[in-house]
Amino acid sequence: MCSVIRVKPVLRLLSLSLRLNTEGSSRAAAQSRRLRSGVGAGLEPLAASTRRYCTRMARTGAPLFRQLFESESSTYTYLLADVETKEAVVIDPVLETIDRDLKLIRELGLDLKVAVNTHCHADHITSTGLMKKRLVGLRSAISKFSGATADIHLSEGDTIPFGKHYLTVRETPGHTDGCMTLVLEDQSMAFTGDTLLIRGCGRTDFQQGSPERLYESIHQKIFTLPDQCLVYPAHDYLGQTVSTVGEERKFNPRLTKNLEEFVNIMNNLNLRHPAKIDIAVPANLVCGLHEL
Amino acid sequence: MCSVIRVKPVLRLLSLSLRLNTEGSSRAAAQSRRLRSGVGAGLEPLAASTRRYCTRMARTGAPLFRQLFESESSTYTYLLADVETKEAVVIDPVLETIDRDLKLIRELGLDLKVAVNTHCHADHITSTGLMKKRLVGLRSAISKFSGATADIHLSEGDTIPFGKHYLTVRETPGHTDGCMTLVLEDQSMAFTGDTLLIRGCGRTDFQQGSPERLYESIHQKIFTLPDQCLVYPAHDYLGQTVSTVGEERKFNPRLTKNLEEFVNIMNNLNLRHPAKIDIAVPANLVCGLHEL
Repeated sequence: MCSVIRVKPVLRLLSLSLRLNTEGSSRAAAQSRRLRSGVGAGLEPLAASTRRYCTRMARTGAPLFRQLFESESSTYTYLLADVETKEAVVIDPVLETIDRDLKLIRELGLDLKVAVNTHCHADHITSTGLMKKRLVGLRSAISKFSGATADIHLSEGDTIPFGKHYLTVRETPGHTDGCMTLVLEDQSMAFTGDTLLIRGCGRTDFQQGSPERLYESIHQKIFTLPDQCLVYPAHDYLGQTVSTVGEERKFNPRLTKNLEEFVNIMNNLNLRHPAKIDIAVPANLVCGLHEL
Repeated sequence: MCSVIRVKPVLRLLSLSLRLNTEGSSRAAAQSRRLRSGVGAGLEPLAASTRRYCTRMARTGAPLFRQLFESESSTYTYLLADVETKEAVVIDPVLETIDRDLKLIRELGLDLKVAVNTHCHADHITSTGLMKKRLVGLRSAISKFSGATADIHLSEGDTIPFGKHYLTVRETPGHTDGCMTLVLEDQSMAFTGDTLLIRGCGRTDFQQGSPERLYESIHQKIFTLPDQCLVYPAHDYLGQTVSTVGEERKFNPRLTKNLEEFVNIMNNLNLRHPAKIDIAVPANLVCGLHEL
């Protein structure tokens, strides 16, 4: 009836416990390193969607999942939990919505283990630091290339376990040096941060931005995921909540271009400087709040 | 491993074809019928979530599903489609986001059969009428108690088929006389309109509003669905995207009260009159645009 995806990602178990309280250590070593479509056009995304559910069918106890939105910065926060052990992970929590998020976590009876940021955000302040104050045992996590303080510094292939589930880190620099995409163990969901947005991508004109690296990251680390993998970005400004790898490969107006055209687009966006960057980046380098 | 829910809802096949082009007919004959919690508190919603995925596992070809947001009126639009036949239904589309929605429908190669409104909205104008102009064969649907013009007038137990799937109508008056909740065939999803919101409910102080009827509708027609049934409302103002019947039964601050307390709460909300009501309601009585 359906081709069940049986992904066996290499499980490089992350020795999280060995990485505790390494605040202030790893500063980023900046390494140099089409579209109106007809009836037939949607075949792949549709088939992909079928397989997505079939992937679910092949598993028992898929994680609880919630998508939450912060309207001022148009940021998505994601909550994932093991429904049996209640161990949970939150991705990109925002300071302004900490009360809403903690209330939900309490109501669902979750044991929040890790608050992970996909990168050092420039448009909002993370609630990670304040969450750590309110939830005993919660640990913060971010890329080792972010330059930010955290309990856990992540790099390629590391995993973030929660109960029987885990997220795997794929380093996807380009928007910033420390951008990561977090992929669920069965590759049914990818949390792409500001690397890949729905029909768009993160800007590359500040914070170590590089259109060449972004293009390479997306093509090598995200577009190599299964077409049916759901794409959950850190932001959306048009009310869209989710896409798929297959859709973005086919319909993303920037990423369907070749590298030269992409670089040219990215270097001519002429975007306004983020209003909060001078407050948000220094704050996010220390879990969202200074002196914490 | 999990208790698969095998729901066999009574399939009252709707004779949609018999109800075409009845514009201007059925005016509503307004009938006088009429937390904080600890670790253990979340057990039911979590168990429910497990079963939700198990329900998916018992099925092949679950529908494609997209949740879309319109930020001015904080309205959610939902798109559901059969992944094989591509037949699709849109719920509560908004005029301001018609281009976004039609672009997605084209990209996914969908054949949109029905645009259904959960009720005659007072806070935004539906795009149903304009969509009908742009998509040949699209039919509009709304409750026969809404007083609104549409191709299809729905009542209790009617179904809206799309491919091998269907939504079943549950009449849930109280916010307005013509409010409906649309339930997917396996009772895994309920589109509750303004009847039940996440940790809230629709107001009852205009448009035939009745707190008594709303309370009865929610308790008899929505809270009787399985705990794990996902609740997708027409609006959310706090960035929440989904809840479950189990959660709302347990945590909804209004609906966990008894009828007398609920009525007292609803009669003392002292909300502002909706800014667009004098424009939106007359427009929505004729599919969103006059003279269409």
